[in-house]
Amino acid sequence: MSITIMKFGGTSVGNLDRIKKAAKIVKSKILKEKQKIIVVVSAMSGVTNNLVKSFNKISYDIDNPEYDVILSTGEQYSSGVMSTVLNSVGIRSRSLQGWQVPILTDNNHSKARINSINSEQIKKLFKSFDALVVAGFQGISRENRITTLGRGGSDTTAVALAIATKSNCCEIFTDVEGIFSSDPRIVKKAKKIKKITYEEILEMSSAGSKVLHPRSVELAMKYGIKIHVRSSFTSKTGTMVVKEEKKLEKEIVTGISSSDYEANISLKGIPDKPGIAGNIFSLLSRANINVDMIVQNITDDGKYASLTFTVPVEDCSRSVKVLKESKIKFKQIKFDKNICKVSIVGVGMKSNVGVAKTMFETLAKKNINIQVISTSEIKISVLINSKEKKVALNALHNAYNLHR
Amino acid sequence: MSITIMKFGGTSVGNLDRIKKAAKIVKSKILKEKQKIIVVVSAMSGVTNNLVKSFNKISYDIDNPEYDVILSTGEQYSSGVMSTVLNSVGIRSRSLQGWQVPILTDNNHSKARINSINSEQIKKLFKSFDALVVAGFQGISRENRITTLGRGGSDTTAVALAIATKSNCCEIFTDVEGIFSSDPRIVKKAKKIKKITYEEILEMSSAGSKVLHPRSVELAMKYGIKIHVRSSFTSKTGTMVVKEEKKLEKEIVTGISSSDYEANISLKGIPDKPGIAGNIFSLLSRANINVDMIVQNITDDGKYASLTFTVPVEDCSRSVKVLKESKIKFKQIKFDKNICKVSIVGVGMKSNVGVAKTMFETLAKKNINIQVISTSEIKISVLINSKEKKVALNALHNAYNLHR
Repeated sequence: MSITIMKFGGTSVGNLDRIKKAAKIVKSKILKEKQKIIVVVSAMSGVTNNLVKSFNKISYDIDNPEYDVILSTGEQYSSGVMSTVLNSVGIRSRSLQGWQVPILTDNNHSKARINSINSEQIKKLFKSFDALVVAGFQGISRENRITTLGRGGSDTTAVALAIATKSNCCEIFTDVEGIFSSDPRIVKKAKKIKKITYEEILEMSSAGSKVLHPRSVELAMKYGIKIHVRSSFTSKTGTMVVKEEKKLEKEIVTGISSSDYEANISLKGIPDKPGIAGNIFSLLSRANINVDMIVQNITDDGKYASLTFTVPVEDCSRSVKVLKESKIKFKQIKFDKNICKVSIVGVGMKSNVGVAKTMFETLAKKNINIQVISTSEIKISVLINSKEKKVALNALHNAYNLHR
Repeated sequence: MSITIMKFGGTSVGNLDRIKKAAKIVKSKILKEKQKIIVVVSAMSGVTNNLVKSFNKISYDIDNPEYDVILSTGEQYSSGVMSTVLNSVGIRSRSLQGWQVPILTDNNHSKARINSINSEQIKKLFKSFDALVVAGFQGISRENRITTLGRGGSDTTAVALAIATKSNCCEIFTDVEGIFSSDPRIVKKAKKIKKITYEEILEMSSAGSKVLHPRSVELAMKYGIKIHVRSSFTSKTGTMVVKEEKKLEKEIVTGISSSDYEANISLKGIPDKPGIAGNIFSLLSRANINVDMIVQNITDDGKYASLTFTVPVEDCSRSVKVLKESKIKFKQIKFDKNICKVSIVGVGMKSNVGVAKTMFETLAKKNINIQVISTSEIKISVLINSKEKKVALNALHNAYNLHR
């Protein structure tokens, strides 16, 4: 039995017409390729946001298991609708909620991790059905309570089902044609990437590109699941996410991402004692604030240090408050929300020198000031003023010849 | 452990403010009476209708199990919200979906019947929680699929839970203060009934009063569960539904109901052969049309019969079509949608003569023509022109002194 996973995101199931279009794609795969299909659906676009809003009218405690009870209704609804539409076009189909599969998770409500999926029942059901519509984003804990996997979790549901059913391909349908070398709304010459490695896409996610849930990519990488990111509105081939070995032409730079969702915080006049940076970051970590880029300097006299780091923009005010109310000593605190993180990503960087040099020279030529720099093996990120984002992205896209 | 069941209908959970009001009632019961509470919730008012509409855009086959998957999201949502609100006011609470209780039903999707409820888990959970919020209207079949119990099914969930947990009272909270001697919008002198028997309320339901799901009353009657129908907007005592033995003052007539949801169909010139009425009604039954009042006459020459009966108004056109297209012979078919069924109900009727006489005389005095009459042991129903409903109800209410 050959099983394919087809995951449809929120915009691909955004209304009944789109669900019918998606059902057509599923039907055609069943008829032409004699595949059994696991359809994974997100909630219809906007629904999860509305459910979160209605929960927040009562509580902000997303660790409350009821948050997951409320949120999971979005995917339950879309799975029921998708299956009914498939039935109406003659496909033997039924829906499965997380607890029905079952998709067993830990009990970290609102951000649960999948522990295991029992595929026995799926295989049994495929004797009576050609398509099984699984509600994405949700699972069930050992305590028999509904859990959800965090934003974008339906991608993870899809990949985990691919692993459990030994399906070798997972198609992720979305409203764009694939993964682009940069954001086409900002960089007109941006091109669809044909192949990208797991590592690159992970770095692009952390750099602000929101194509796949990082956890889904980690799982796919670990188990070698091929992911095909494509549009539900055209039949064109999209972007294949593959192992590094399968990507023969290793461009130095594969893509350029940007993120506007960060804020820059600077602390000046910190007594330069061992462990002080550690204290600051453990304080923020306890407050559940995720620190990204970090730069530390020491003043000329060696007595004081200054520290600059970025946090998610929505945590900026809270970070400042937490630091001011703490025992940590500093002379001045400043923050800047008008910043943008620009990142170049590519597995070819590992074996190529001069990549960083090109980046810095290109930005210098455009008179763009770099505030903070951070690097990984296959990524270089810089923090710039958000006004200069468009110029920076286009200049870098040209500098690395990504339009070719 | 003393357990009370409190069921809140759609209008009582119609918005967040009302849910907060309901939660306050639950909290007060827990604190003042040291009770453990099973809160049963309906979907927020309007939600189920919208879900049905969205399903009907794809299919009218409500036997499709996906219908239940879609509809049950309404109660899942309200149970999650209710439990979160209870948590926010300091009550240890969690939600339970039908499959989590579990409430086992047969697999008649969209109109399932409860087979059994395992109360072991509920008792165990009450060690950690003071309120368990059960999503009404839903259960789970042996095939592990979500089922729903039909419109008004949350009442049945509540009574079934009362039976399973040996709770001796089931409070049904609604938007009216109880059950009235007649519809207060039509009969100004209508009075709240203090006590009513199961049999009376069943007859009133079939006569058009929509207070309790008939199946819930049947179950309560069978197991002797006291039902208290009351308003979630006041703390006044409502109406107690009890065994006949507990109702000492047996009024001859307890209440007067009316139903506008019926149509009258007349067939004339039917060859008077044995079995012909049976043929007609089995034909309609196969078409899933529920026939209510029936009158048959034979013409003077004994060759032809005429048959008059009522069907739900929404099935009228279909009934006519089914009959016209059938092999059944008749000379003429007529229908009338401007009719109203008026019923007087009371256990005291059994032992009192003259009840029917009063009814007919009262209507005659008002010049109201009776088209069809049907009776049961504790009910007399007449069909009249719908224009005369208000006059009829008020005149009968006076005639039986129901305002005293």
